[in-house]
Amino acid sequence: MPTQLSLTDLAARIGAEVRGDGARRVSGVAPLLTAGPQELAFYANPRYRKELAGTRAAGVIVAEHEAAHVPHGSATLVAAQPYVAFAKASAVFHRELTMEPGAQRFALVDDTAEVHPTAAISPGAYVGPGARIGARTTLHAGARVLDNAQIGEGCTLWSGAIVRERCLIGDRVVLQPNCVIGSDGFGFAFDLEGDGDGPMHRKVPQAGIVRIEDDVEVGACTCIDRATLGETVIGRGTKIDNLVQVAHNVRVGPLSLLVAQCGISGSTELGQGVILAGQVGVVGHLKLGDGARVGAQSGVSRDLEAGETVSGAPAIPHREWLRMVAALPKVADLLREVRKLSKRVEELEEEARGRGKPQAEALETR
Amino acid sequence: MPTQLSLTDLAARIGAEVRGDGARRVSGVAPLLTAGPQELAFYANPRYRKELAGTRAAGVIVAEHEAAHVPHGSATLVAAQPYVAFAKASAVFHRELTMEPGAQRFALVDDTAEVHPTAAISPGAYVGPGARIGARTTLHAGARVLDNAQIGEGCTLWSGAIVRERCLIGDRVVLQPNCVIGSDGFGFAFDLEGDGDGPMHRKVPQAGIVRIEDDVEVGACTCIDRATLGETVIGRGTKIDNLVQVAHNVRVGPLSLLVAQCGISGSTELGQGVILAGQVGVVGHLKLGDGARVGAQSGVSRDLEAGETVSGAPAIPHREWLRMVAALPKVADLLREVRKLSKRVEELEEEARGRGKPQAEALETR
Amino acid sequence: MPTQLSLTDLAARIGAEVRGDGARRVSGVAPLLTAGPQELAFYANPRYRKELAGTRAAGVIVAEHEAAHVPHGSATLVAAQPYVAFAKASAVFHRELTMEPGAQRFALVDDTAEVHPTAAISPGAYVGPGARIGARTTLHAGARVLDNAQIGEGCTLWSGAIVRERCLIGDRVVLQPNCVIGSDGFGFAFDLEGDGDGPMHRKVPQAGIVRIEDDVEVGACTCIDRATLGETVIGRGTKIDNLVQVAHNVRVGPLSLLVAQCGISGSTELGQGVILAGQVGVVGHLKLGDGARVGAQSGVSRDLEAGETVSGAPAIPHREWLRMVAALPKVADLLREVRKLSKRVEELEEEARGRGKPQAEALETR
Repeated sequence: MPTQLSLTDLAARIGAEVRGDGARRVSGVAPLLTAGPQELAFYANPRYRKELAGTRAAGVIVAEHEAAHVPHGSATLVAAQPYVAFAKASAVFHRELTMEPGAQRFALVDDTAEVHPTAAISPGAYVGPGARIGARTTLHAGARVLDNAQIGEGCTLWSGAIVRERCLIGDRVVLQPNCVIGSDGFGFAFDLEGDGDGPMHRKVPQAGIVRIEDDVEVGACTCIDRATLGETVIGRGTKIDNLVQVAHNVRVGPLSLLVAQCGISGSTELGQGVILAGQVGVVGHLKLGDGARVGAQSGVSRDLEAGETVSGAPAIPHREWLRMVAALPKVADLLREVRKLSKRVEELEEEARGRGKPQAEALETR
Repeated sequence: MPTQLSLTDLAARIGAEVRGDGARRVSGVAPLLTAGPQELAFYANPRYRKELAGTRAAGVIVAEHEAAHVPHGSATLVAAQPYVAFAKASAVFHRELTMEPGAQRFALVDDTAEVHPTAAISPGAYVGPGARIGARTTLHAGARVLDNAQIGEGCTLWSGAIVRERCLIGDRVVLQPNCVIGSDGFGFAFDLEGDGDGPMHRKVPQAGIVRIEDDVEVGACTCIDRATLGETVIGRGTKIDNLVQVAHNVRVGPLSLLVAQCGISGSTELGQGVILAGQVGVVGHLKLGDGARVGAQSGVSRDLEAGETVSGAPAIPHREWLRMVAALPKVADLLREVRKLSKRVEELEEEARGRGKPQAEALETR
Repeated sequence: MPTQLSLTDLAARIGAEVRGDGARRVSGVAPLLTAGPQELAFYANPRYRKELAGTRAAGVIVAEHEAAHVPHGSATLVAAQPYVAFAKASAVFHRELTMEPGAQRFALVDDTAEVHPTAAISPGAYVGPGARIGARTTLHAGARVLDNAQIGEGCTLWSGAIVRERCLIGDRVVLQPNCVIGSDGFGFAFDLEGDGDGPMHRKVPQAGIVRIEDDVEVGACTCIDRATLGETVIGRGTKIDNLVQVAHNVRVGPLSLLVAQCGISGSTELGQGVILAGQVGVVGHLKLGDGARVGAQSGVSRDLEAGETVSGAPAIPHREWLRMVAALPKVADLLREVRKLSKRVEELEEEARGRGKPQAEALETR
């Protein structure tokens, strides 16, 4: 990890082009507002244009079309993918918490577990019978891998993360603190007879596992249930936020994003690159096509086509939802208006009947 | 645990009737799609009729009215309660993870705790002062039972499950990983005066406990708060999914189902056999009658009668809700239509006035 | 902690005025329904008037305007802030679970950590390299403080609570079981190029921290993400319930209340005394003014003024929302009514056209 880099050197590493003084040296990245003259900042959201104008940063990463807004005191680092360039720049200077390889004092490693010598097992971390831990993987204090589970290479299991028996975790997977992989699915059969003591919810054994592919991240306190039979699967490169519920037998495709507090019911399948925003709920046994996107707090109760964008509960096409929610607050007034309108129509009808009758009479009397 | 059983023997154990070759031997259960010729499958959801038609399973458990759909290559196991029969069949072959009885190396058991000799306390599990652990109960690695809490017989506390001080857990209770029993309720009194440092939220001591009756299951990362005074109670045989919030002083009756991510506010009482679907919220101080059912993502803000089925936020009778959500997307068009209609009525009114006046004039001029 | 107090003595401690027999002695507080003749009860919610009428409590804390409802058998303790008085009374008799100072057997304290001699570190609790634990702070079994994090004085970290590296916790902070402070924010830049293996979600290092000010309480399984850069901040005296999600770079002002299962997206700022009810969602990059209040399950997608009260998803002023949700169930009928109305108008129009034409013809034929 370098302590300082010239903007020119840094730009080369992150795929950006320097405009201005490339010889300036930076030692880290920082937000526009607080960045000092030895730090690199990043601008993308127009909400922060004021902060951009006032920044003291040595340089600012921006897209080409925003380059003109960078103030003269800062160099401009133009990038085709500014946020990607920022991520790379930050990674250049950031050092993740690392542990010494080997099992530390109070590490609880079963004699029958296979732990790679380059893996780090912290105090109070647990590796159960028959479990396998791959090269360069870190178990922080209190991470737990139960019997016969397998963890790949270069993974990070933060404190309190739990991988239950037999589950399979790929390479470079990150498990945030207190997440749970392989809890029992919520499977009960209502048994009218029970075992002689009246009706009961009889447990359906959750005999399957969870399989997590490479490069997945699982958020804090997120729960991924093991399959009833077979596998619950999280696809390669998918990222899951905190407090998410993934039920038994769900299959999430690669490169999907599941935002905080969303929940997916049993046996539902998500394609590649699906995005569920925060607090979304999806019912069971559905198929959500590649690239489907679901707006925050929505409830999905039908299959989604590839590329569909939906919102609302029950979810409908996003544009329709926008029109709908703009209209709904007017319904109370609409009710009154229609009531009045109905009266007016009634009066017209009465008037018409009144007009009709006398005319008829008039005809008769002619 | 048998390794193989004939279909006839298995059928006898699970309360099913074999049609076809009862001598075929099976060694496990599997989904229709992947079942091999030595496995038993299960069919109930018409979504999976195609999988049924193509299955290679030795036998398929079905209800009487579906028996005709089982393909000729598989025996049919007809059951009055097919899902219950499947649960029993799966349990015949499935072996839950078990630990050796006794306190293992690194088990943290206080000298004043009472642990039954048949209980298993895994490495890193904790039993605090005065706590009691019943016969055949397992504490997996990192499960924690704090001071003077009591756990009954035949329970399973998975890794990271926490039972705080003085809480009472019945027999055959399952606590999934990282669930929390007995956290403080969210009780604060807004104190305008404070302790000399301006207003504050003064903590109301949460002096009560949680009592969990027999045969309850609590999901991963689910939180059940202790009572302010007295008890928060989860009734016999109730099953709770992951990430559920049960606030202080709530009482849940027996045989209820609380699906993932739902939340119940303080002092609310649920009767027997109540079902809250996923992501439901219930406000405080309510009574939900026996057998009440609440649809996913609904918000319940009034008492529910026994047997009532509601949906929506605020929740209304389910049938009304179905009608409502079918109608709501049409509101934007409705607004336009009513505006037009209003104009048309106005024109009719003008026309009527126009007709009226000249006629009156005509009369006058007669 | 006293075992018994006269009502007169107790009233002096809690800022109440006794009416009736102040010499009666009480040994604790209890709910109206179960309180015995040596216990003090509390009444505020008219839902419980029946319980008040039947109570056997030695005394009842009430507001002045409710004093007349206390039955003759009980003394009345009138308080300006009855719930505050109750909180104080309960605290007089309640003893929180405490541990002996010092690091207990199996406490995992790194040699480079600084733990105040009056702090209590329970079995299986962990204090990492360079971490600091203040005076009179308790880490219950399995609480974990990672490298270089700092915990102030008089804090309580319950079992399974995790404070990740470098985070800063003030004085008198309570962390309920299994909450997570300082998990990585959900920050990924979609990189079309990736590292040669196709597109990927590239992790943006979450290099910042969480800072929690004095007198904050954080609920069980609540997750507060560390900032991408800089700090996620929870202000002095704010109370957070269970299963709440606070994303990276959020700033919550002092004395706010975040009720269970609500979620705040990245970089949003809450002022002082903001209340988010249960299951609320707030999108990112917003500002919620001082004293803003958001109703349960609402979705906030715009800035809120100080003192604004909103509900619904998307959230609108609470009064408008009340009118709206009362009207919405009538929409299905409204649709039918408008359809009928439209027909009636059509008939009137036809009739008018009919009348028009014949009249014209009549004129012609005259």
